[in-house]
Amino acid sequence: MDDDAALSATAPPLYQKIAALIERAIASGALRPGDRLPSVRALSQQHQVSMSTALQAYRWLENRSAVLARPKSGYFVAQQRPLLPEPQLDLRMEGASFVNIDQVLQEFLYIVDDPLALPRFHAAPARALLPETKLQQLTASINRRHPEYASGYAMTGSAALRQEIARRAINSGAQLRPEEIVITNGGMEAIYLALRSVSSPGDTLVMESPTYFHLLQVSESLGLKVLEIPSHPRTGLSLEALDLATQQAGAVKACVLLPNFPNPTGSLMPQEHKQQLVAMMAERQVSIIESDIYGEMHFGEQRPPTLKSFDRKGDVMLCSAFTKTVAPGYRIGWVAPGRHLLKTRALKMRTSVACPMLQQEVMAQFMREGGYDHHLRKLRAALRSQARHMAEAIARYFPAGCRLSMPQGGLLMWIELPRHVDSREVFALARLEHIGVAPGAAFSTSRRFDHFVRLQYGDLWTPKLDAALRRLGQIVTSLAEREPTGLTQRAAALLRA
Amino acid sequence: MDDDAALSATAPPLYQKIAALIERAIASGALRPGDRLPSVRALSQQHQVSMSTALQAYRWLENRSAVLARPKSGYFVAQQRPLLPEPQLDLRMEGASFVNIDQVLQEFLYIVDDPLALPRFHAAPARALLPETKLQQLTASINRRHPEYASGYAMTGSAALRQEIARRAINSGAQLRPEEIVITNGGMEAIYLALRSVSSPGDTLVMESPTYFHLLQVSESLGLKVLEIPSHPRTGLSLEALDLATQQAGAVKACVLLPNFPNPTGSLMPQEHKQQLVAMMAERQVSIIESDIYGEMHFGEQRPPTLKSFDRKGDVMLCSAFTKTVAPGYRIGWVAPGRHLLKTRALKMRTSVACPMLQQEVMAQFMREGGYDHHLRKLRAALRSQARHMAEAIARYFPAGCRLSMPQGGLLMWIELPRHVDSREVFALARLEHIGVAPGAAFSTSRRFDHFVRLQYGDLWTPKLDAALRRLGQIVTSLAEREPTGLTQRAAALLRA
Repeated sequence: MDDDAALSATAPPLYQKIAALIERAIASGALRPGDRLPSVRALSQQHQVSMSTALQAYRWLENRSAVLARPKSGYFVAQQRPLLPEPQLDLRMEGASFVNIDQVLQEFLYIVDDPLALPRFHAAPARALLPETKLQQLTASINRRHPEYASGYAMTGSAALRQEIARRAINSGAQLRPEEIVITNGGMEAIYLALRSVSSPGDTLVMESPTYFHLLQVSESLGLKVLEIPSHPRTGLSLEALDLATQQAGAVKACVLLPNFPNPTGSLMPQEHKQQLVAMMAERQVSIIESDIYGEMHFGEQRPPTLKSFDRKGDVMLCSAFTKTVAPGYRIGWVAPGRHLLKTRALKMRTSVACPMLQQEVMAQFMREGGYDHHLRKLRAALRSQARHMAEAIARYFPAGCRLSMPQGGLLMWIELPRHVDSREVFALARLEHIGVAPGAAFSTSRRFDHFVRLQYGDLWTPKLDAALRRLGQIVTSLAEREPTGLTQRAAALLRA
Repeated sequence: MDDDAALSATAPPLYQKIAALIERAIASGALRPGDRLPSVRALSQQHQVSMSTALQAYRWLENRSAVLARPKSGYFVAQQRPLLPEPQLDLRMEGASFVNIDQVLQEFLYIVDDPLALPRFHAAPARALLPETKLQQLTASINRRHPEYASGYAMTGSAALRQEIARRAINSGAQLRPEEIVITNGGMEAIYLALRSVSSPGDTLVMESPTYFHLLQVSESLGLKVLEIPSHPRTGLSLEALDLATQQAGAVKACVLLPNFPNPTGSLMPQEHKQQLVAMMAERQVSIIESDIYGEMHFGEQRPPTLKSFDRKGDVMLCSAFTKTVAPGYRIGWVAPGRHLLKTRALKMRTSVACPMLQQEVMAQFMREGGYDHHLRKLRAALRSQARHMAEAIARYFPAGCRLSMPQGGLLMWIELPRHVDSREVFALARLEHIGVAPGAAFSTSRRFDHFVRLQYGDLWTPKLDAALRRLGQIVTSLAEREPTGLTQRAAALLRA
């Protein structure tokens, strides 16, 4: 496939371009809630496209809750339901400390696969949003042609898959060569190997605060200290705080960051922040471990750039995976470790040697044939719509004093509750009713997020899910209406049970 | 499947029982080289079996080079070609030290997948000895029924596979429950997780000497010290030396041992040694990490017991994998961590989370249906015959002063060369001719094995392989005939090239 074809495979189809124009007109105020939109015929003439393309554009917008179809009247700009105000940035910082995950959170981590939970605990799109049938067909075909994948493996991973990853990297602004990529067992192994490549026990890492609890756990297991840098729920890491934290040479060994739609906040670091951040860390000789695992799940039109795309000296170790976007069960991740390539490759050999070939080749072919891009377009639209539904439900059902920053991509929503509500108690009570909510305390070594919760919106929006959120709202309301006390006897008993 | 069926599935077929009787008669001297054996008809009457069973017994023995068929004369006891004498045990010990793998060995490790090498560098049975077609069929069938394996995974591994592993453990004398097993990405991750579960940087481990270089590398990467315990090429670890090394309480944190057919020697620790060893380490509170990855590749009739089978207190962490016996490319291993289960499970989550389900389910079904046992019987016979051919070729082609202990199972052969031959030079010269030979120096932090080499006999015995060994014998001879010097200029240049 030549470069032109590669680029055109990732360009959005015509109907999406038209839909995007209408969305921009709504966002700018040129079109207002309740306004009648041009008829399908008028739209098709206006843009010189077929009627069916025009209709597809409206259906796409309808699916995103941006327009409403009224039978026999046509399409109208939808009323945007009010959302909650955004949480405020708390700029207090604590010193670096060794991580010590407490018992409640340990327990939380062991029940994340409750099969009855709705919403589920685990951040992944619903099965219906994943391309299982297509992957099944590719698996059958590749298995038929390659029985030898049972008997052998490639040390740094399938050459075809590394080729596809390198080809796509251009979309994120980075230039990667296939030979500088190491395939890993999922995104966690990628970060794990990157961490071990640049740090030793006792070293201090910088992370966003809040951050994904698994990163805290890995740091704990490797005997690393973590310095949490306040992060805005919309724009991510505070550069001022990072500047402050890294002024003393050698104090910080590496940053572990998710600039694009991180778990748990779904924030998006502005491009100029990314550029400044990479330059500052390069100057201060602090390595950057970047996870871009949610980077292709953007709700805006453009895929945001990675930190890696601003890296000139190989300081950024870019980690990603297909476990969120395509196939959680394949466990395929990768790392492009920059100038630490040899170290990371050696550590992979000393940890788990290699990954199974079959799934890697299936993934490579899925990408090569354009199935991946087609799938991502549908997935993004579904997630954006589900996120909107969930945010509206939270605004409807949660008590006064709650706050929420609308995620700009990814799978997760970060909600501030009234300050005296203990999210561990919310977690314990919701769990009894199979409502998957993660307690904010899991996302920091500080106590400052004890009144936050995380929800994931990978599940299809259904009346049952709406009912679960209503029930969750009732739980939060009942706790909010009680006198502030701290963890109650009852919750403590529930957590011990 | 009930217990009786499970047991009968692992019992050898009738023809093998008859063949074993004849082998014992040869071993005891009751039958001598050149003796004529009973006719097929006589053998069938003698044992009251069919003619075809009797014929199968002779063919089996012929395949093992134990008997010869002479056209129109019948079967005769084969001349056993002379093998080399056994290396002597060197009981000198050095202190515990941090591992520092040198450049030559680093290089060795990066070329282990030279596709042209014969014998190959990598210890694995030839593709023709692996059940690719059967696995391909199972994969097609399971993929057809379970598209959802792309979308999900089980945290500690497939329940069906853990069930099968637990069921088979009884053959090795150990009792395991499915819930105490954690599936890993290959055998190396199993050992890696076990090591991290019981040790911290700076701790001292005990290992056999020589031992698998990957274990030394993992120890290096984790900042662990290694104390090498002299090991006999036939009976394994010296218990006296182990006793000495562990007398001081707390000096040694854990042993990492392969009692059954280890890489590189193929030794077999006698049962009473195993029992004593487990008791001694339990008393001294030293954890045992046991790899049984070669345990089912025994050449004798019985599967040898594991150390785990003598473990009463959960001190033994048993690691194994299907990467040597069935499917190197599946990367499926497992660990039964005894009383460290929770720690190991948590570390798995913090390292690579989970393994792909498809291959795990294929492996479970392969075991459940009895295909695994059938395959193992054929594999053992082939490896035993290949080992014999290789040992005879070495006796024929290698110069005086070489020594070899005939392996009792597994895939590897450990050869002592004349003392002044530098095996790194053998490696460098052989490599140019695509002959896969591992330098002894890779298997120890000491220099005492610099005049040893390791060969693997997983490849089918062919005239081409015979020619490669003849050529290797010439290389060794030419180096043996030269004045002792140490690493020559030429070899140094070759290694740098």
